[in-house]
Amino acid sequence: MKKLFKNVNFNNKITDILVNKNKIEKIATNIPSIDTEIFDAKNMIVLPAFVNSHTHAAMTLLRGYADDLELFDWLSNYIWPLEAKLTEDDVYWGTRLACLEMIKCGTTCFNDMYWHSKATAQAVEDAGIRAVVSQVFIDQNKGQESQKQIAKAEMFFANNSDSERVKFALGPHAIYTVSKESLTWIAKYAQENNKLIHIHISETQKEVNDCQTEHGMTPIEYLYSLGILTPNCLLAHCVWLTEKDVQLIAESGATVLHNPVSNLKLASGFFPLKLLKKYGVRIAIGTDGCSSNNNLSSLEEMKFAALLPKYIEMDPKLYPVSDVFRDATLAGFEALQIDAGVIKEGKLADFILINRNNSMLTPNYSIISNLVYSADSSCIDTLVCNGEIVMNQGKVADEDLIISKVNEICKNLTNK
Amino acid sequence: MKKLFKNVNFNNKITDILVNKNKIEKIATNIPSIDTEIFDAKNMIVLPAFVNSHTHAAMTLLRGYADDLELFDWLSNYIWPLEAKLTEDDVYWGTRLACLEMIKCGTTCFNDMYWHSKATAQAVEDAGIRAVVSQVFIDQNKGQESQKQIAKAEMFFANNSDSERVKFALGPHAIYTVSKESLTWIAKYAQENNKLIHIHISETQKEVNDCQTEHGMTPIEYLYSLGILTPNCLLAHCVWLTEKDVQLIAESGATVLHNPVSNLKLASGFFPLKLLKKYGVRIAIGTDGCSSNNNLSSLEEMKFAALLPKYIEMDPKLYPVSDVFRDATLAGFEALQIDAGVIKEGKLADFILINRNNSMLTPNYSIISNLVYSADSSCIDTLVCNGEIVMNQGKVADEDLIISKVNEICKNLTNK
Repeated sequence: MKKLFKNVNFNNKITDILVNKNKIEKIATNIPSIDTEIFDAKNMIVLPAFVNSHTHAAMTLLRGYADDLELFDWLSNYIWPLEAKLTEDDVYWGTRLACLEMIKCGTTCFNDMYWHSKATAQAVEDAGIRAVVSQVFIDQNKGQESQKQIAKAEMFFANNSDSERVKFALGPHAIYTVSKESLTWIAKYAQENNKLIHIHISETQKEVNDCQTEHGMTPIEYLYSLGILTPNCLLAHCVWLTEKDVQLIAESGATVLHNPVSNLKLASGFFPLKLLKKYGVRIAIGTDGCSSNNNLSSLEEMKFAALLPKYIEMDPKLYPVSDVFRDATLAGFEALQIDAGVIKEGKLADFILINRNNSMLTPNYSIISNLVYSADSSCIDTLVCNGEIVMNQGKVADEDLIISKVNEICKNLTNK
Repeated sequence: MKKLFKNVNFNNKITDILVNKNKIEKIATNIPSIDTEIFDAKNMIVLPAFVNSHTHAAMTLLRGYADDLELFDWLSNYIWPLEAKLTEDDVYWGTRLACLEMIKCGTTCFNDMYWHSKATAQAVEDAGIRAVVSQVFIDQNKGQESQKQIAKAEMFFANNSDSERVKFALGPHAIYTVSKESLTWIAKYAQENNKLIHIHISETQKEVNDCQTEHGMTPIEYLYSLGILTPNCLLAHCVWLTEKDVQLIAESGATVLHNPVSNLKLASGFFPLKLLKKYGVRIAIGTDGCSSNNNLSSLEEMKFAALLPKYIEMDPKLYPVSDVFRDATLAGFEALQIDAGVIKEGKLADFILINRNNSMLTPNYSIISNLVYSADSSCIDTLVCNGEIVMNQGKVADEDLIISKVNEICKNLTNK
């Protein structure tokens, strides 16, 4: 049955929105309600849903497990030992928790990289939202390992098809964990099969220095030389870039995935927003995994993204809220090649209804400013993904079940 | 009637908390429930309430009115013209909105500086929380103006007594807006009458340079020379400090009010957390006013406070979450000389109940880490101030009335 959202505030006008199957069919006043399921959206503002452009969703299982430590101590004594114990089932429930949290924060789509991709994909299907899911590809520069990992990836794509809401992508972890041989294969495979490539790149100064030593070029130049840089390429972090790097990214049409909180928490460095904007590079905002954030809120991430460059460049006009909001919504959908991100007839029905009766949204001089600088999850009332209502009046199915399952898993994990 | 909170999680143990009048009378298991009002606190964690240590509460009326502008353009073309129109009634409702928002975020107490203090105080009384309220003191360095403002302040204190939940304080705006003569009087008056002094200090580099030119010393040295630096002194911002400044503050027992989001948004500079901690200065976290934030959430402010120094000093171990949480709770109460901030028999009953069944608090390896790095207002279920229940199950009295009043006021303000 079609869904009719009555009397919603859209661009400061009160209108109705008719959703047919997974798309917005009509936006008009007084749409007849015959044969429709009606939702009263009085006092609600409709806006595109958020896209969380870079996540390791199941790492919700590690939220708050270890904080405020030196990177190596943190990874080797806390994160890696716990991650090594994670089963397919653990990843499923960790991802369900991540989906729950993202739904509450107004997100219908995320771009993930982790182990046990099938469990991730299943969790996304069951949660009713969208994701681009890439299995981490690591071969540690070992010759035969490359062939083995390539075979494994080929097998994965042969056995797992994209669905309406889940797309599988290639997930080379980073240039220091994947061999040149494998990266070359990935570039070719992605081009021939029109697959997205999701990679961590230029995150730390050490990575750049090591790449210069080993390959005589920057990480971005290295990706370019291997044919990885295309519109299908999703570049997570990009903290340490040269002007030439930025030009290469701009020319290629690749997207930079910006994770301001993670960059702060891991003290990665300063994201070169001004330079990227100068060359018109598409930037999509993401939270990174829970252990370096520690939440998955695009609302909070927008505030960090908006404020940091103003402070560092001493320029309060830099990165105005309308740009920040676009980079947390439309830019993400564009990067992931999903036809949503604007409220428009014919587009996929991925949107949120915001409850105006919230102190954080009062007064309402500018809903976008209020969302970027003030709102939290309590402002999001309803979430529609692919035409289905995933959250209504802040309620999400299976919420208590997911929370109790995760608490049980984590209790066992730390006792193992 | 006494209030009994049954089966609450306190320091990882399940216990009961008995509140008698405005204090915590008893913490024990199985407290008899005869003649008590009972609250089921199963699945709730009890923690001290937050103190918002530096606010201009009624500036909620300006939330999102003008953002992302040059400071002078912002102030002279947007903020000041609108502020000039504010009436006593506007300030009352703006402060009610601020109180509502702070209650939702788990705050029972704030330290305010604004015009129309009586309206602010009345709003705090009506909202059921606490505040230290100082009337802005400005005399713009004009001789006679100083006498006039001193007389006005004396009159204010003669006519307005502290109540159980509202204390009045002296609010010299800054050293560049208050004359030496007035600051000298303020120091003396505060000492003789045991009043708190709340001042903006060393917020911008320009302020420091101007003070060096005019007085041949730093702003902190200048305050010291005038006798302002005492344990009654609340120093907002303190972004530009020398090591000698920090030593003077430490020796005096004054408190530094730290506003990380405002420092970012106004590009004020880098807060010298490491230096202040080295000398053991008390730091209390605050949000500043809504137009430079744009919300009043101590939860969000803690995350910014925790992450920024790690990033800037490249030291992930700096400012661990337990310190951040203390500076957003106990340190604020200590600075404002209010006997709360710990859950202990005999202390004032200012606490929050946190609902564990929230995705942002799952898993629960560390509630303090989860609060600092992950939580938002949706995690706060109940707020108790001075022994009274101000919020229960996220519901606050007069919420819709306050929001509609403020929307009406702001519509008129911008149409005037």
